[in-house]
Formats: sequence, structure tokens, C-alpha cells
Amino acid sequence: MQSRAAVAWKAGEPLSIETVELDGPKDGEVLVEVMATGVCHTDAYTLSGGDPEGLFPSILGHEGAGIVREVGAGVTSVKPGDHVIPLYTPECRECKTCLSQRSNLCTSIRATQGKGLMPDGTSRFSTGGDQLFHYMGCSTFSNFTVMPEIAVAKVREDAPFDKICYIGCGVTTGIGAVIYTAKVWPGANVVVFGLGGIGLNVIQGARMVGADKIIGVDLNPAKREMAEKFGMTDFINPNDVGHDKVVQAVIDATDGGADFSFDATGNTTVMRQALECCHRGWGESIVIGVAEAGKEISTRPFQLVTGRVWKGTAFGGARGRTDVPKIVDWYMEGKINIDDLITHTMPLDEINTAFDLMHEGKSIRSVIQF
Amino acid sequence: MQSRAAVAWKAGEPLSIETVELDGPKDGEVLVEVMATGVCHTDAYTLSGGDPEGLFPSILGHEGAGIVREVGAGVTSVKPGDHVIPLYTPECRECKTCLSQRSNLCTSIRATQGKGLMPDGTSRFSTGGDQLFHYMGCSTFSNFTVMPEIAVAKVREDAPFDKICYIGCGVTTGIGAVIYTAKVWPGANVVVFGLGGIGLNVIQGARMVGADKIIGVDLNPAKREMAEKFGMTDFINPNDVGHDKVVQAVIDATDGGADFSFDATGNTTVMRQALECCHRGWGESIVIGVAEAGKEISTRPFQLVTGRVWKGTAFGGARGRTDVPKIVDWYMEGKINIDDLITHTMPLDEINTAFDLMHEGKSIRSVIQF
Repeated sequence: MQSRAAVAWKAGEPLSIETVELDGPKDGEVLVEVMATGVCHTDAYTLSGGDPEGLFPSILGHEGAGIVREVGAGVTSVKPGDHVIPLYTPECRECKTCLSQRSNLCTSIRATQGKGLMPDGTSRFSTGGDQLFHYMGCSTFSNFTVMPEIAVAKVREDAPFDKICYIGCGVTTGIGAVIYTAKVWPGANVVVFGLGGIGLNVIQGARMVGADKIIGVDLNPAKREMAEKFGMTDFINPNDVGHDKVVQAVIDATDGGADFSFDATGNTTVMRQALECCHRGWGESIVIGVAEAGKEISTRPFQLVTGRVWKGTAFGGARGRTDVPKIVDWYMEGKINIDDLITHTMPLDEINTAFDLMHEGKSIRSVIQF
Repeated sequence: MQSRAAVAWKAGEPLSIETVELDGPKDGEVLVEVMATGVCHTDAYTLSGGDPEGLFPSILGHEGAGIVREVGAGVTSVKPGDHVIPLYTPECRECKTCLSQRSNLCTSIRATQGKGLMPDGTSRFSTGGDQLFHYMGCSTFSNFTVMPEIAVAKVREDAPFDKICYIGCGVTTGIGAVIYTAKVWPGANVVVFGLGGIGLNVIQGARMVGADKIIGVDLNPAKREMAEKFGMTDFINPNDVGHDKVVQAVIDATDGGADFSFDATGNTTVMRQALECCHRGWGESIVIGVAEAGKEISTRPFQLVTGRVWKGTAFGGARGRTDVPKIVDWYMEGKINIDDLITHTMPLDEINTAFDLMHEGKSIRSVIQF
């Protein structure tokens, strides 16, 4: 079949809207009509060429929502008509990691997904006879895409695609970091570095579980209003307190340090601050942001010996098929706010504008509606 | 009163055996007759001058066992005749940290202890009218010492002082790192870097809780026999596999990485290896060793984002008054082996020999008997 798609021909160039060829689902695979997709920093990172594992030509996009239109042989968990969110972190429930019950980082299709291919080692996308790579196992910048059955989360049918697509990455990453990775407890003091889309979702996750102080740290004072709407109680601007005094400012505001800190900047200097502002004895810092290739984090081991814990999270520690449908329910029940985070919507033809808005800092999240 | 003691007059010089003056216990304090004390690397580190917080002149020693001989006003939890282990990490059960139930790092007397003084800001030790500093709140290189009540653990009276003194630091640090900090589960794969006294106690802790593979890493092949006696199942010598291939060797030996790793070397390069050999998704690395002043640990944040956790431990995460008596019981019940770790005993007059044996790598632990 054919599908309209935004093709990334090479690093650093705008996406090209084209009609591509899509082979149907093979065994264990499903064809999904993507109804809406967010445009995420990770797409921009790969498109920039900064991602050493980026592959071209490819169809980017990993934050979608849509409808199953066809299923391959042996598919039992979804059927045509089901509403689904594609999962760049699948959940096979059979691999060592899934069975460990200690991590969401299912490894069942990792090797091929990392190569831009389906589990059988081939691509479903092509144009003019030439293969196009899949991206993060999703390629939601195509109106139709093929996914492994284990990489779609079935969700309720009354949820709007143009909102819940954001649960496919940003919402789950931020809220999940709070509830699945950190397991923030009611009454905890929380600090969030970086008040972009991920940071705001950390904030609303912290509010949802009953955190006390929720401190936001950002260089841009314009972020304050929105962050307060999502639950931020205190704001620290490093430009005001001094970049080398941010750690002390958090310690002062929390009677000794944060119970939990989250880095949503991807800046390794900030990651260190996030660790070191944690409370002696038990404070945990969770790295969410993706750092530039080659960058390293450092600290004095004394920080760990005196009880601080350094962790990270991917996809918020969420098990996609199990947890994503719950987060959709929370949105529909009004427990979490997604609407205010989606600042722009546009058709596929204007997808390059979504990247522009992101780079200019004018959007929190842009969503493409097919 | 007077007490025989080994005085550290200045950094880098041998200890001097002298008779010093000791004031009796004030409110909330107890006088302890030290019956035996271990000589630990931390004593040597401070004596070397490398510890930026080291104070001189002082009476070192922090790994003792003895008998309460006198109590000050208000002391209720111990009485003269009680057998006790001095605690460099006290347990007040009243401070924010103790009440958090999330850390053993009681802060009630931290400020004065760090200054080499008792909680009232003065020293009980002097010689010729000049003050001598306390050390780690213990100063067990004196035959008699004064401790805050909250810094002694009451233990059973049938336990031999010259063995259980080691529970005052090394045994608890190693075993506690396994059971209190890491909470190693039965069937876990564990790797221990550094097979000195702490590493051997990590190994027997891992064996006690039912770990599967217990891998030891050390440059010295002579460590293998003793480590196997304590429960090590596999030995990796970086000189054999290549220093840059240790991480891969652990991953190969554990089907993907260690569930728990422990650094008992204090070497920051090794600390990084210990983190990076952990299993993707859930492996936790615990820093036990004390690094040289100014040294830092580093890694790519990707290591954390993909599920590894970096932690540290001090005094094994043990709450001194609550947990140390249990560890004494475990020794008396034969659950743990201390006897084989104490390779040398000697009188106070020969304490400088204990340091020599340590520096020459000839002892695991030397114990001074008063």
C-alpha cells in the first residue's frame, strides 16, 4: 500500500513530504493508521545528525496514536479497529528483562529496532524500490506504519488521538519517572531541572502523588507561570541565585536537600547539580534528559557514600502495554493535564514548522494531525 | 583518670605510646574500657595526612570493643559492666535522619565529632595540660575512652572482644553494604572489586543471603584462596583478562551483567568499572571504598538511563545500636566468619607494627589487645 509520510533523507535537512510504499504486516505485526503524532526533541536530535545511531533515509516520529487496520498471522492481543499507542519501548512479557519485573527495558526486538528494521531484519517502508529505515520501531511521521504486536498499547476508544499521542513519549517519560522510577512518596520534596515538556510532566506527576514542595529550576522566567499551573510551588532561576549556588538554593529551600531530583535538561553539568542538591542519607536523583554524545557525568564519590543515589529512567520506567493504558485513563479522568501542553497542532505538510517552533522555544509540544 | 594510649602527634609519624589524661563522662556520656581494637585503613589514611579533615594531635582508632565502666548523668540505655562496641556512626533515634528510617547517617553529634570533640565542644583527652583530639568519636587506641551514650552498641557478654571489635567497622561495612544498602536478593549475581578485609566481608554477606555467583576481582592472585573460603565462586584478575576488559568479563560471567557490584578499592577508575559491569535495567553498584581527596567518579549518563543505579554506603547502612548487636549474634551463631580475617594480634606497644603489616599487605586485620 501507499502512505503519506515525512521522509528524513539526510541529517540536517528539512523533512520531505512524500508518498511512500508500505508493505503489510507480517507474522506478529500490525498495520496502524496513525491519527496524530507529537514532534519530540528526540526526533529533532536524530534529524540534526547529532545522534551517532541515527540512520538515513528514514521516517522519524515515535509519539503517535492511531487505529489498528490489519493484523498479521498469530496476532492475538489487538484486532482491527482497536485504538493503540505505538511503543518505542515494547513489552514482550517473555524476555529476561520483562520477566525480571525490575525494568521496563524489554530486549526482545532491541537489536533490529536499533538498526531501523522490523524484527525479521527487513524494512516495511520503501520509495522507488529503495528501502527507508524505521525509527525507534515506530515511524509515526507516516500516516500508516507497521509495528510488532508487542509494541502497541491498546487504549480506550473515547480518548482523543491528538492529545493521547503525547502519552507515547513525553507524558509517560515525565510522570513515569516520578511514579515508576523514583516512586516519589506523599510529602516528599522534589526538584525538577528544566521546565520544558518533560519537566512539566514531572511536576504534574509529583503533584499527583502528593509531593510537598515541587521546585522548578530554569533559566527562563517565562516558564514560571505554566509550571505553577502544573503544580510547581517554588521557582529557582540560576541567573538570579548564581549558577554555582543552585545546589545551595535547593538545600536551603528543602531543609537539607531534595528527597528526589530530576534532570530534564540533558546537560551533564546540571545532572551533577541535580545529584548534589539531594538530601544526605537518602536523596535520589533521576537522569531523564539525553546528553550529547560523548558527554559524561561526574561527582565526588563522597556524594554517594553519604547516601545520595544516582539513577536514570527511559520511557519513565513504564511498561508500555501495561502502564500506558492507565495513563490514558488518568488523562480522561482529569488527573493529569495534557491539553495545555499541546501548544500547536498542524497537518503533516507543515511538520517542518513544528521543528522550527521547537528550536525557537515557542512550543511545548506540537502535534501533527493526519 | 589516666589511660595508656597511642597518640598521633602529627601526620606521617609513628604513633607514640603514652599515658594521657582522661576526664570522666559528662551528662549523657559513658566511660568505656577498651579491651581490643582493630587497626583500619581509615586510621592509616588519617595518620598519613591524606585526610583533609584529619586533626592532630589526636588519639586514633574507631574499631573497638570494651566494657562500660562509668556513666554520666542521664544515661539510661547502658550501665557499668555492659559490653559495648563504640560507634563512629551513632544512632540517636531522634534526629531527622534517624526518624526518616531511610538512612543510618545520624546527624545528632556530627558537627562536634567532625571537629574531634565531644558533643559539648570540648575534649576529654589531654596530656600535660594540652588538649588531644578525639577521632571519629571513638579514639579506641586508648585503653579508656569516653563516648556519648548514643554512640555505643550494647552487645552480648559472651562474645570475645578481640573478634567482635572488627564488627565496629570492617565487618559491618562489608556485610551491611550487602544486606542493608544493596538488599541483595537470593539468587543474585554479585561482583566485588577488591578482596581486602571489606571485600571479604561483602563476599560472606552475599553468601549469607543466598547469592548465586559471587565474583571477586583483584590484581593479587594470592587473594583467591581466602576469598573462596568466604564464598567467592569466580575470580577475575584484571592482569589476566586485561584491565580494559574487566567489565566485559563480568558481563560474560553473569549472562549480561551483575545484579549488584561493590567497590571495595577506593579507586575511582574501578568504581566506574563496577557501575558499568552491572546488568542493564536494574544492576546496582555500591561504592564502599573511600577515594583520595579530590578524585571524582564519571560515567556516561546513558549507563543510568538504561537502568543502572549508583549508590554508596557508609558503615554498611547499619544503624549502630540496632544492627550491630545482631551482627555480633550472627558471629556467635557461626553465620559469619571473623576469626580467619584477624590475622595478627598484638599489644598496644606494637601498634606501629600493625600499620606496617597493613602497608606491606601482610595482614587482613590486626587487632590490638589491651
